[in-house]
Amino acid sequence: MTLSDLAVHLGAELHGDGRLEITGVAPLDRAGPGELAFLNNPRFRKHLPGTRAGAVLCRADDAALCPVPALVISDPYLGYARACALIFPEPLPRAGIHPTAVVDASARLHPGVEVGAQCVVGPECVLDQGVVLGPGCILEADCQVGADTRLGPRVTLYRGTRLGRRVRIHAGAVLGADGFGFAPDQARHWVKIPQLGRVVVGDDVEIGANTTIDRGALEDTVIGTGVKMDNLIQVAHNVHIGDHTALAGCVGIAGSTRIGSHCAIGGGAGILGHLDIADGVTVTAMSFVTRSIREPGVYSSGVPHDTAREWNRSLARLRRMGKRDKGAPGQD
Amino acid sequence: MTLSDLAVHLGAELHGDGRLEITGVAPLDRAGPGELAFLNNPRFRKHLPGTRAGAVLCRADDAALCPVPALVISDPYLGYARACALIFPEPLPRAGIHPTAVVDASARLHPGVEVGAQCVVGPECVLDQGVVLGPGCILEADCQVGADTRLGPRVTLYRGTRLGRRVRIHAGAVLGADGFGFAPDQARHWVKIPQLGRVVVGDDVEIGANTTIDRGALEDTVIGTGVKMDNLIQVAHNVHIGDHTALAGCVGIAGSTRIGSHCAIGGGAGILGHLDIADGVTVTAMSFVTRSIREPGVYSSGVPHDTAREWNRSLARLRRMGKRDKGAPGQD
Amino acid sequence: MTLSDLAVHLGAELHGDGRLEITGVAPLDRAGPGELAFLNNPRFRKHLPGTRAGAVLCRADDAALCPVPALVISDPYLGYARACALIFPEPLPRAGIHPTAVVDASARLHPGVEVGAQCVVGPECVLDQGVVLGPGCILEADCQVGADTRLGPRVTLYRGTRLGRRVRIHAGAVLGADGFGFAPDQARHWVKIPQLGRVVVGDDVEIGANTTIDRGALEDTVIGTGVKMDNLIQVAHNVHIGDHTALAGCVGIAGSTRIGSHCAIGGGAGILGHLDIADGVTVTAMSFVTRSIREPGVYSSGVPHDTAREWNRSLARLRRMGKRDKGAPGQD
Repeated sequence: MTLSDLAVHLGAELHGDGRLEITGVAPLDRAGPGELAFLNNPRFRKHLPGTRAGAVLCRADDAALCPVPALVISDPYLGYARACALIFPEPLPRAGIHPTAVVDASARLHPGVEVGAQCVVGPECVLDQGVVLGPGCILEADCQVGADTRLGPRVTLYRGTRLGRRVRIHAGAVLGADGFGFAPDQARHWVKIPQLGRVVVGDDVEIGANTTIDRGALEDTVIGTGVKMDNLIQVAHNVHIGDHTALAGCVGIAGSTRIGSHCAIGGGAGILGHLDIADGVTVTAMSFVTRSIREPGVYSSGVPHDTAREWNRSLARLRRMGKRDKGAPGQD
Repeated sequence: MTLSDLAVHLGAELHGDGRLEITGVAPLDRAGPGELAFLNNPRFRKHLPGTRAGAVLCRADDAALCPVPALVISDPYLGYARACALIFPEPLPRAGIHPTAVVDASARLHPGVEVGAQCVVGPECVLDQGVVLGPGCILEADCQVGADTRLGPRVTLYRGTRLGRRVRIHAGAVLGADGFGFAPDQARHWVKIPQLGRVVVGDDVEIGANTTIDRGALEDTVIGTGVKMDNLIQVAHNVHIGDHTALAGCVGIAGSTRIGSHCAIGGGAGILGHLDIADGVTVTAMSFVTRSIREPGVYSSGVPHDTAREWNRSLARLRRMGKRDKGAPGQD
Repeated sequence: MTLSDLAVHLGAELHGDGRLEITGVAPLDRAGPGELAFLNNPRFRKHLPGTRAGAVLCRADDAALCPVPALVISDPYLGYARACALIFPEPLPRAGIHPTAVVDASARLHPGVEVGAQCVVGPECVLDQGVVLGPGCILEADCQVGADTRLGPRVTLYRGTRLGRRVRIHAGAVLGADGFGFAPDQARHWVKIPQLGRVVVGDDVEIGANTTIDRGALEDTVIGTGVKMDNLIQVAHNVHIGDHTALAGCVGIAGSTRIGSHCAIGGGAGILGHLDIADGVTVTAMSFVTRSIREPGVYSSGVPHDTAREWNRSLARLRRMGKRDKGAPGQD
């Protein structure tokens, strides 16, 4: 792909020789001839004058300092994302069912579907065109997978799961396992509540490795369009996640909580059940959301590290203050 | 199933026409004819007068307001759990070994066992009657699985694992991987401690998707009868969890800790190693248990969210107080 | 193996009859004839006089009190680790490819390699001598696995993954899934950044069950020599972990962070992205690392549990102080 072609596809302004062939991408300080680099964060501007990249994606004000051809664009990071997709297009599905895969006779697969080795596709499943199942995927009965959706290796979809189009799920993710619902009986033993809902995932969703999304208890667990979820996230039954919300790794969301659209949930955050989180809410990493949030904004409760010595002092002080207060009149 | 039949099985008092055929369940505000709803939480009582459900499971004092037939019962949630199990009985095991499964000649399988596609069952395994292995399960050598236990897809049992009766394990769970044990040598390199114990699981246990339970180092890791574990929980080597304890998602328990019976551990909680937790302890979500707990009760250290602005002030204050105190005489 | 043999292999001083045959290991208070016990922690010294073990690994000052033959060694725990490995040697690989495994014709496998049932080995993979793939492992194209490396059941290596020698990976771990990289477009939809780097793992690394390590975005994610990682850890793209660092379960590390060598990261800790952590840093469990750490030492922010009553008081106080301060002149 030539630099000119890239400029056209990205809607970027070309500075320099457009006939240059772009064959790869690399960081600004390491790129060589034929490689495209980008400059988004001003922190890395220092690498621009000395870059040996074939070309650089950058903003207009940086282009002047660029010693090599430049593609000028208002958002170089977005441009880089799109350039990568052009330079490294995903391999097309290799239509066909691997001979070791087990596909139920009642499943309906578009002829262009790729089913990897050792897959299991259950009764009544429907796989639309362009679907790719990596090796070892297991789809229980009655799953529906939209066009151009790609599952990595060893993804599990329990019965009835619905996936939209262009969904991407990474290895080991589990969608539709039973939610965690039990009622105590007279002997204080737990009696299972059958979990009868499904997991329903919109278009353009990405779900990370070993993430788990439980089926709804009575109704469905719903992941909105364009949601991006990292690895090792736990989504409990009946949760709804609004469109274009992003969740970083290790987040846990308890049952029946509804998260709005365009939210960002930081890594390791925990969110209690039966809450409503408004659109446009950012929860910073390692925070603990205990009440509904009605207004967009940034919310936190993560505690930054200190030296163990200082931190133990802070803890001791918090506790001492408690003791003092207890003796004070009119408290509690 | 008729309403009369349900009343008998649940030990509920029937108000209204018992000949009604119940074909499904649904929430009180959405149920239609033929569907059973339940009213447990008074918060939802407002939906009772207008319900279009076929019948409602509720307490005696709510029955008077119920516009449709009612099943009166002291614990409607428990009744609902049991009704669901009656209306939606689990499919019986389809006895047989899928032709793609690999079962060692020395394994002993009760004739009624169902072994799914792509399973691997190692030497000397014993599977009792009614056992179901979902597709892709892997049982290493010498695993024993009690009657009516059901494994979801892609469950892994390492060698020597013992499961009781009616255990249910969800997709991707791993039981019996090596515990995390290393001794530093003179060069400060880690030397592995071979992990020689097993994982032993009692009857009626449920284990969530992608949860991991490590084998013991010298003795066994033990999960008691009736324990319920959610997804993405980590249980380290030698841990004992007492009967009928429930653990929500993303909990981590370090090595050799013993948790009592009838405990409830909230989501995301972390519990240090070598502790003893008494029976009847509740640990709230996102708490960090650092010392043994001798008395039943509720324990916490989760920090509820605030706006980032307010939270940063709280943090700054805690730190400033520390600085002040350091200057004070007689401190530290 | 006789006690004399063990003494020679461990470099221990033999006290007592070296002809004793050692057939197993057990805790000091439970070991019987023929079993080796060890005494490292003085807390367990009380069990020494009454032990019925065949022999005891202990320090010189404890040997005097030992009623049975002793192997005297300066570090009994390390000696125990090595003794276990001698008494319970790992089974040798059973050379061969299971007939249900799918191995691409272009993959190069050393003749001594063991490939378990239902494995999938992609094009251009290279497996060196002594490699063992447990059942159900999936290696995408172009993975390289060093000599004597052992993968447990159902491990996934995405394309291009590099593993050193004597690496051990437990069931369900996923190496090389896409990192979590997206750029927002004008409509605030997320555009995927193709993830082009690899995961590169050094020699003698251990990786726990269901742990996930993402491939780099442009460059590689790197796990150093001798690193030990527990279960359910999330390592984001471009992270580097230095040699001989140990990470306990449920740790999450965000993108592009570099952790030094000989660090210890406690369970449940979260580490933000783009940080530098020096060599020799200990982060205690459930801490949240928010800034780079330049000096070795111990760092914390985990909050120890209290009774819920006391803890709620502490929280209320912290919040009240905030309110007071806001009214004070000259603040904020």
